[in-house]
Amino acid sequence: MPNYNNIFITHVNQIQQEGRYREFIALNRLAGNFPKALNHVNNDEIVVWCINDYLGMSQHQDVLDSAATALSKYGVGSGGTRNIGGNNDTIVELENELAELHGKESALVFTSGYVANDTTLSSLSKIIPGLTFFSDEANHASIIAGICNSRADKYIYRHVDTLHLEELLQKVDINKPKIIVFESAYSMDGLFSPIAEICRLAKKYNALTFIDEVHTVGLYGNGGAGFADMQGYATEIDIIQGTLAKAYGAIGGYIAANHTIIDAIRLTAPGFIFTTSLPPIIARAALASIRHLRNSDIERKTHQMVIAKVKNMFKNAKINYFKNDSHIIPIIIGDPIKTRQASEMLLKNYGIYVQHVNFPTVPRGTERLRIIPTPNHTDKMIQELTDALIAVFNALDIEYQKQAA
Amino acid sequence: MPNYNNIFITHVNQIQQEGRYREFIALNRLAGNFPKALNHVNNDEIVVWCINDYLGMSQHQDVLDSAATALSKYGVGSGGTRNIGGNNDTIVELENELAELHGKESALVFTSGYVANDTTLSSLSKIIPGLTFFSDEANHASIIAGICNSRADKYIYRHVDTLHLEELLQKVDINKPKIIVFESAYSMDGLFSPIAEICRLAKKYNALTFIDEVHTVGLYGNGGAGFADMQGYATEIDIIQGTLAKAYGAIGGYIAANHTIIDAIRLTAPGFIFTTSLPPIIARAALASIRHLRNSDIERKTHQMVIAKVKNMFKNAKINYFKNDSHIIPIIIGDPIKTRQASEMLLKNYGIYVQHVNFPTVPRGTERLRIIPTPNHTDKMIQELTDALIAVFNALDIEYQKQAA
Repeated sequence: MPNYNNIFITHVNQIQQEGRYREFIALNRLAGNFPKALNHVNNDEIVVWCINDYLGMSQHQDVLDSAATALSKYGVGSGGTRNIGGNNDTIVELENELAELHGKESALVFTSGYVANDTTLSSLSKIIPGLTFFSDEANHASIIAGICNSRADKYIYRHVDTLHLEELLQKVDINKPKIIVFESAYSMDGLFSPIAEICRLAKKYNALTFIDEVHTVGLYGNGGAGFADMQGYATEIDIIQGTLAKAYGAIGGYIAANHTIIDAIRLTAPGFIFTTSLPPIIARAALASIRHLRNSDIERKTHQMVIAKVKNMFKNAKINYFKNDSHIIPIIIGDPIKTRQASEMLLKNYGIYVQHVNFPTVPRGTERLRIIPTPNHTDKMIQELTDALIAVFNALDIEYQKQAA
Repeated sequence: MPNYNNIFITHVNQIQQEGRYREFIALNRLAGNFPKALNHVNNDEIVVWCINDYLGMSQHQDVLDSAATALSKYGVGSGGTRNIGGNNDTIVELENELAELHGKESALVFTSGYVANDTTLSSLSKIIPGLTFFSDEANHASIIAGICNSRADKYIYRHVDTLHLEELLQKVDINKPKIIVFESAYSMDGLFSPIAEICRLAKKYNALTFIDEVHTVGLYGNGGAGFADMQGYATEIDIIQGTLAKAYGAIGGYIAANHTIIDAIRLTAPGFIFTTSLPPIIARAALASIRHLRNSDIERKTHQMVIAKVKNMFKNAKINYFKNDSHIIPIIIGDPIKTRQASEMLLKNYGIYVQHVNFPTVPRGTERLRIIPTPNHTDKMIQELTDALIAVFNALDIEYQKQAA
């Protein structure tokens, strides 16, 4: 008879042996102190260089004010699913704003970006019998979950490789329904997808397009409408997926598309139907954040300026970071132990928090530090980060000046 | 070549033809006004009789105060996944409180109860090779999703039928790992699971047990520790799943179990690993709600008193509701059109909101109204509900006095 306790222990031990055991660092990000935080262990003030609250909007005064007003007006929870008591003005207005932001007819809000991807993609194969997925190999876990859970046919194309994508598209009968699923910017290497070429192939092979813009909404495009908007392809994309949890500083995910697509997903997706809707305080906080970033460019401009400064200082210091055109600056170490040690040493000795990223978040052998600048990182912080990285790399014998293959 | 627009339109039309098209009623539940709300259409004040904010905790002063304090201290969003910047005191303390509440070593918080079920159950089959699921046929969509997505072997037993469960357990080799998955109380018929017998069978056949307590935490047991606690079986259950979105009035889900099980799920479940953690304001609101309900019995006592009053008045009025021992009072109509009409008439003519529940939330032919009393429903509201139901049933020729088969 199985000994369950042993099975669980063996599973955890296996993860430990692979160097993949995770201890979460507790830190308290205090409003008004962005991008700093307090380290829970010793209450030391640290500088955070790896947060997805890209513009610090979680602490923006408009966002705080809107959440506070909603809190005293509505309370906390929505009290139900969208269909049973959990629908209200705050979430309807949020969806209208998101549709307008992306120039689409409608939008649908989910409890997270993860759920938005998972339940939308798996539902699409129920709505479109015989649908075949074409998915970038580096797509996020939530996209993989949605496609796998759909049990539909799938082809995985090499990362941002449209030649390979076209090879795969050619393998499937032109009369079969298809969808190309990709991210605007990949969080682990910061590469943008070649959206123009993907849209050309989608037309040529009569495929739908689904873009995950979680790392680009709020940050790129007109009023923060995202990468597809910036590149002039938002109208050609069938389904734009995004998040309220990164640049918008709240929580939740969404899709924007034409009315018929949104209605079909709304009436079909179990991850939308059978779950409590977002609290009004979250809906109002997100709405305030989106509206602010639609009307203000200064955050995006400063963000880009800081990114350029960091990249430039790394270049001058000969720190070999992974080149891309986005706001994510990866430094690939390629060893799980050393990557973890570098992160620990940065925190302990320099008060700098850069989370190490190991398998399963990235492939084995590509373990990395990932630097995420924000508009609030000062020149002094950039200098201190650069000096600390060099000191840590030297101490751990990490060849940071070596050119990438 | 497929015409995607036609495919989406056909899908929505099909749902419309089956009488399953859903229009969400927008209502604004204002703090201090529970269980009333404003109908968005005409701004009329209505009485809500179908909300899962069972005790009105979303508007409790302790909850509002805690959320307000957290908002000005931390801002809104957590800024990252638990592993990358999104771990903080508020979520760690919430998990400690939940573990203590259920008398377990550890707890793990997810973005929703749906996600807690889906990702925990599908991950269990990765952790325990060859795991076979035994699942009540009426289990929630999120449990079905988790089991289906796991692709493990599964046996579905007839609703709360432990004879059938034992028959199925006997079919599987005693040396194969097994898990029985059930809900403490079923939201659509209000039946409690026969937990004593399920625990006996689990021991006899060496199966793990997973209980979904989303409709019972906060409402039953010592300090709101749930149905398993009330029945004295909490220590025998391996994994207790619950929600922060119903009796606790916030959003989010969780599991509580021994440390090894929680650690294994924490390190494995993609729906936990790859998603932004709950905002500190939500964690603090939920913590305040749990703590209040651990120290106060008055809400639970009043809740039970109101439930008894409603059932008694229905009995006296000969309204044939579905009998159970819980707080959920279903009136089965068995016709999707009439059920919808009854709901619409209650709202329009009587200012009473009872959402109709049709397929796919319940099986076809069992369409129903579902009355959810709260501690704040007054005797006058109960009388008005009863009178309105009888008037509506008479107007629509619904045989409400007919005995259930």
